[in-house]
Amino acid sequence: MNSTPIPIPAAPAPDILRCAYMELVVTDLEKSRWFYVDVLGLVVTEEDENSIYLRSFEEFIHHNLVLRKGDVAAVAAFSYRVRSPEDVDRAQAFYEELGCRVERRAEGFTKGIGDSVRVEDPIGFPLEFFYETEHVERLAWSYELCGAGALVRLDHFNQVTPDVPRATRYMESLGFRVTENIVDENGTEYAAWMRRKPTVHDTAMTGGDGPRMHHVAFATHEKHNIIYICDKLGALRISDMIERGPGRHGVSNAFYLYLRDPDGHRVEIYTQDYYTGDPDNPVVSWDVHDNQRRDWWGNPVVPSWYTDASLVLDLDGNVKEVVARTDDSEMEQTIGADGFSYTRKGDTAQGYKLGNQL
Amino acid sequence: MNSTPIPIPAAPAPDILRCAYMELVVTDLEKSRWFYVDVLGLVVTEEDENSIYLRSFEEFIHHNLVLRKGDVAAVAAFSYRVRSPEDVDRAQAFYEELGCRVERRAEGFTKGIGDSVRVEDPIGFPLEFFYETEHVERLAWSYELCGAGALVRLDHFNQVTPDVPRATRYMESLGFRVTENIVDENGTEYAAWMRRKPTVHDTAMTGGDGPRMHHVAFATHEKHNIIYICDKLGALRISDMIERGPGRHGVSNAFYLYLRDPDGHRVEIYTQDYYTGDPDNPVVSWDVHDNQRRDWWGNPVVPSWYTDASLVLDLDGNVKEVVARTDDSEMEQTIGADGFSYTRKGDTAQGYKLGNQL
Amino acid sequence: MNSTPIPIPAAPAPDILRCAYMELVVTDLEKSRWFYVDVLGLVVTEEDENSIYLRSFEEFIHHNLVLRKGDVAAVAAFSYRVRSPEDVDRAQAFYEELGCRVERRAEGFTKGIGDSVRVEDPIGFPLEFFYETEHVERLAWSYELCGAGALVRLDHFNQVTPDVPRATRYMESLGFRVTENIVDENGTEYAAWMRRKPTVHDTAMTGGDGPRMHHVAFATHEKHNIIYICDKLGALRISDMIERGPGRHGVSNAFYLYLRDPDGHRVEIYTQDYYTGDPDNPVVSWDVHDNQRRDWWGNPVVPSWYTDASLVLDLDGNVKEVVARTDDSEMEQTIGADGFSYTRKGDTAQGYKLGNQL
Amino acid sequence: MNSTPIPIPAAPAPDILRCAYMELVVTDLEKSRWFYVDVLGLVVTEEDENSIYLRSFEEFIHHNLVLRKGDVAAVAAFSYRVRSPEDVDRAQAFYEELGCRVERRAEGFTKGIGDSVRVEDPIGFPLEFFYETEHVERLAWSYELCGAGALVRLDHFNQVTPDVPRATRYMESLGFRVTENIVDENGTEYAAWMRRKPTVHDTAMTGGDGPRMHHVAFATHEKHNIIYICDKLGALRISDMIERGPGRHGVSNAFYLYLRDPDGHRVEIYTQDYYTGDPDNPVVSWDVHDNQRRDWWGNPVVPSWYTDASLVLDLDGNVKEVVARTDDSEMEQTIGADGFSYTRKGDTAQGYKLGNQL
Repeated sequence: MNSTPIPIPAAPAPDILRCAYMELVVTDLEKSRWFYVDVLGLVVTEEDENSIYLRSFEEFIHHNLVLRKGDVAAVAAFSYRVRSPEDVDRAQAFYEELGCRVERRAEGFTKGIGDSVRVEDPIGFPLEFFYETEHVERLAWSYELCGAGALVRLDHFNQVTPDVPRATRYMESLGFRVTENIVDENGTEYAAWMRRKPTVHDTAMTGGDGPRMHHVAFATHEKHNIIYICDKLGALRISDMIERGPGRHGVSNAFYLYLRDPDGHRVEIYTQDYYTGDPDNPVVSWDVHDNQRRDWWGNPVVPSWYTDASLVLDLDGNVKEVVARTDDSEMEQTIGADGFSYTRKGDTAQGYKLGNQL
Repeated sequence: MNSTPIPIPAAPAPDILRCAYMELVVTDLEKSRWFYVDVLGLVVTEEDENSIYLRSFEEFIHHNLVLRKGDVAAVAAFSYRVRSPEDVDRAQAFYEELGCRVERRAEGFTKGIGDSVRVEDPIGFPLEFFYETEHVERLAWSYELCGAGALVRLDHFNQVTPDVPRATRYMESLGFRVTENIVDENGTEYAAWMRRKPTVHDTAMTGGDGPRMHHVAFATHEKHNIIYICDKLGALRISDMIERGPGRHGVSNAFYLYLRDPDGHRVEIYTQDYYTGDPDNPVVSWDVHDNQRRDWWGNPVVPSWYTDASLVLDLDGNVKEVVARTDDSEMEQTIGADGFSYTRKGDTAQGYKLGNQL
Repeated sequence: MNSTPIPIPAAPAPDILRCAYMELVVTDLEKSRWFYVDVLGLVVTEEDENSIYLRSFEEFIHHNLVLRKGDVAAVAAFSYRVRSPEDVDRAQAFYEELGCRVERRAEGFTKGIGDSVRVEDPIGFPLEFFYETEHVERLAWSYELCGAGALVRLDHFNQVTPDVPRATRYMESLGFRVTENIVDENGTEYAAWMRRKPTVHDTAMTGGDGPRMHHVAFATHEKHNIIYICDKLGALRISDMIERGPGRHGVSNAFYLYLRDPDGHRVEIYTQDYYTGDPDNPVVSWDVHDNQRRDWWGNPVVPSWYTDASLVLDLDGNVKEVVARTDDSEMEQTIGADGFSYTRKGDTAQGYKLGNQL
Repeated sequence: MNSTPIPIPAAPAPDILRCAYMELVVTDLEKSRWFYVDVLGLVVTEEDENSIYLRSFEEFIHHNLVLRKGDVAAVAAFSYRVRSPEDVDRAQAFYEELGCRVERRAEGFTKGIGDSVRVEDPIGFPLEFFYETEHVERLAWSYELCGAGALVRLDHFNQVTPDVPRATRYMESLGFRVTENIVDENGTEYAAWMRRKPTVHDTAMTGGDGPRMHHVAFATHEKHNIIYICDKLGALRISDMIERGPGRHGVSNAFYLYLRDPDGHRVEIYTQDYYTGDPDNPVVSWDVHDNQRRDWWGNPVVPSWYTDASLVLDLDGNVKEVVARTDDSEMEQTIGADGFSYTRKGDTAQGYKLGNQL
């Protein structure tokens, strides 16, 4: 893909602390409440007839997820917390210089969050930056409340975009650092992970038709917490909400599970990646044909995981048009009759894995 | 299938304690040693140029697995320990009355095991019964030796046989009790689990072309031990030895993983089923179309898991002829274009699972 | 202690399957309900104003614990399930031959249990034997109901008696087999563990003033389930209900925690001992001075754990008189100014452990 | 204590990334190698006859621990990594303005580390600041190498100092932020935890006679990894190297274990505290009388944990003189005959805990 690079603003980037919350539009608020509260056990900070504000057990800001009732299931905002009120000004100036649509609200766009700026960024995503927030109780010690599958932190977002290198260069200008990526021998980049807080990522860019939201991820403390979530979904006879996993990622080395919520929004449950906070943290590059890059155990990736993603909204609440990826597709490179992938570099045989039958 | 039932001998059945060991013929002893000792960490009790005697960490009898070098990968014996020396006599009389081929050796068929009887049973499997055995150190407290994926017990065998009800009735006459099974609305029985020790099984009968050995299973203490085995296989770049899992079984409620050894012999790693020792222990019947029967999370069963199995030997060491199953096939009933299965009884849609693409 | 051995009846012993339930008299039923149901999460099968019938998650018989309101906190029955209705007759004959007080009730002594016999046994304990019971739902697959600290099985009882060898010989005549014990170089026996089901024990005899009940133990699947119970007790600000642990036992190799209920009845939470079902299962003898016998990590045993225990009732509901132990006391042998214990045989120094300061 | 506050330099503080390594002087290098490598499983990056350079499994800088042979067991350096080479200059200027002894070495003080500055800080500790380091392989994916108790990160230091508030104010001027502390109703501060990376701490100030090193802490992924370390120490018959725990901290909410190495240096194994990276992260203050502050389960703190600590060296390698604490002692406030602590504020009774007998 030969698209023009996004210019690097002269204005300094805001100092982003971390991904803070996602605002999700859901079509049936009651059904979504059942999924996120009754099934997954997120904590309700506040709710009204149109919105539910949810947080994880170790969070002290007002929320990590807003469910807002709407006609079309989509993402209204990927929200980042910045280090200071002045960084909200910096975010505004940064995106104004880029010529993006920018909207500032002193009273915030959602409950519990103060002065904020929302932008339609150069690759089509609705981002928010804020510092002010209402503090709520950190329930880290409230073991009497948390269940066996307690979600303790918002960990990261994952975005689908047609041109991964272009998106990544822009995110680097915003202060993000790449920790891992998936590439091939021709230099095609299929996905990149990038962070502000010192974990493997606050967001990732996944190659595909975009802008779309691939998933939002919450962390547990241990692997058995994730297994319990699967067991509970089985007991509730909704195991078909499990899309992929559980498994061990190659990329990030984390233990994972992918679910689909009642609207099809993808949620990852994730635990145990590694510290990445040093400026010279080594970048890990994975070969797209390495069969263990997406699942360390070589278990197959279900096709829907490559093809499905959530629409995103512009600042008026309209669905952003999706642009097709023209670079090679990771799915086509690695599964099905035409794909090629290996467990041991040089080997062709792959044994008993299900993916081989596709 | 309308085959003649196997007669019930007048002679009393031997009092079987538990499945005790399997004798496996392997074609490359060094490669098998690498898999079972270096990778899986079983303990070598004794070895010579033709055989390796292995045990699990909590075992005190001489071995739970014998690897014997041979030209054709196969199973030479499914060996059960009985309660007393007299029960070896009872086993002999029981099978002689059935008209089976029976061989008794006072010195045993393998090192570390004394007076034993081996039989070719009515459904074609080579079984062994013994009481006498050399005691070795139970390494339960030897935490300095066991790794993160320690195998602590032999848990069960699993056998493939064309006629599950016929095989099950015969096993009941031998003193086994059914704990769970898979059936359909027409009365077809696809598999049955049966036990002597009070776990879900010492062996199971799986419907298919047989006699063949489906798998041999070892237990770990916790689920993370099994996950570690997967992680280690990934690190060794042999993740393609993972055939299926890890996952949670519906049947047995245990956490599982299926591996294939260098000869393709299937090994299960298994943990946490439930106590079944009461005579009125409730039998759990699963509908063959229940998508959570084989994996509680609804994850698909790879076709090879249904089709592949190890050959078994007669008492002369010749491969037993395999007889085709004529009853309905579980694989065909539940996966692929013609199959049907459900997550919620009455529902037809199944969501995102990989198996749907087959 | 030179007390007369208990005679071995000519009548055959009943075939005991396993410890099945304990009937506990509690002084404040509401408070005990809070502890066992709200805090520990046992399942209520049935309840009325005087009694609560509780079971563990994998149980299918009516109950594993009866809480009965009464004036004096005590144990009314240690109840064992036998293999058949005829074994209830055998139990009756066995104890009648011993000259014990015996009471048979065709309708059972508690709800959910049929024809039963209760006895005051030769060492002063109220035992029950039954076969008939109402089946209830085994909740093994009900992950939506069980919490992070789910109790899945009743594991064992533990009894305090002045003369351990005398009690043990009697229990062996009843069909129990010793799996482990604690002894010294003079032949004094401080405690013995014995089983019917193939775990380390269904009950144990602990040397001390008796007859008293030392504890009743429930099993979890994994160690983190026990840790969660501690974390929850901390969150509820009732961590002082933890008496000892969590820790790893030397004896049994299990992971443990001891709690005290609102009446001071001791409850153990326990996981991961080993299979003991073979008749020649090796008996493990621990030296009373071995500092790792009670806690494999050498952590000290709190004195109350040695001294406190629950009273037991006779068949009229009166408290049984407690007889003092005259053999050496394990506590005095091993802790405090006069005691001696070692981590490495031959060494005297013990490092930093808290017990040294006592 | 009315000591003069440490002045705040006009020079900007260096931008510290994280605690990076500790240089420990040990009296028997072989014995220490056995403890840290054979028992705890740290990875040897490099070694010679006088020194061993060790790292954790997820580390990519040269080492997290240097064992250096010497006559007196002590700490030679608490070393922090800074964000850039210029931050080493800033550290130098910062401490020169404070009038501290400062030594700069372009070639580094240890192998694998480049341009560094070491200082004797105002409260008597030998600190190091560096940016340049040799990169080594991050073994995060090397599951075939790591054992069941794998140490994956250096987590924090802990320092003993007589005047906690004075030390804390100085550390804040160096850029650290307090996350938790222990105080009483009179305003006495007993301990404070402070961080650069967004965990609960990179170091803590513990009130006591100082300057001394209280402990150095390594992280595991899960709680069972820590339990395995205990089990292994038991198997090796060195359980007396366990000083305290395992347990759950109140402060930090982490799961912990304290060991003493062959020289008595204290090592903590630690897992699962929480994210603290926001500038308005809420500080958690614990009452010194709260019985759950040091152990959430109310288990007692062994007196040696309060009294023992390692000496530290000046830049010439001489032992720094220890100054007595004059503020109240946490140990005296909370254990023994004169102390007072509670599980539930307002309650006095404490139940069965061992600490009550001291």
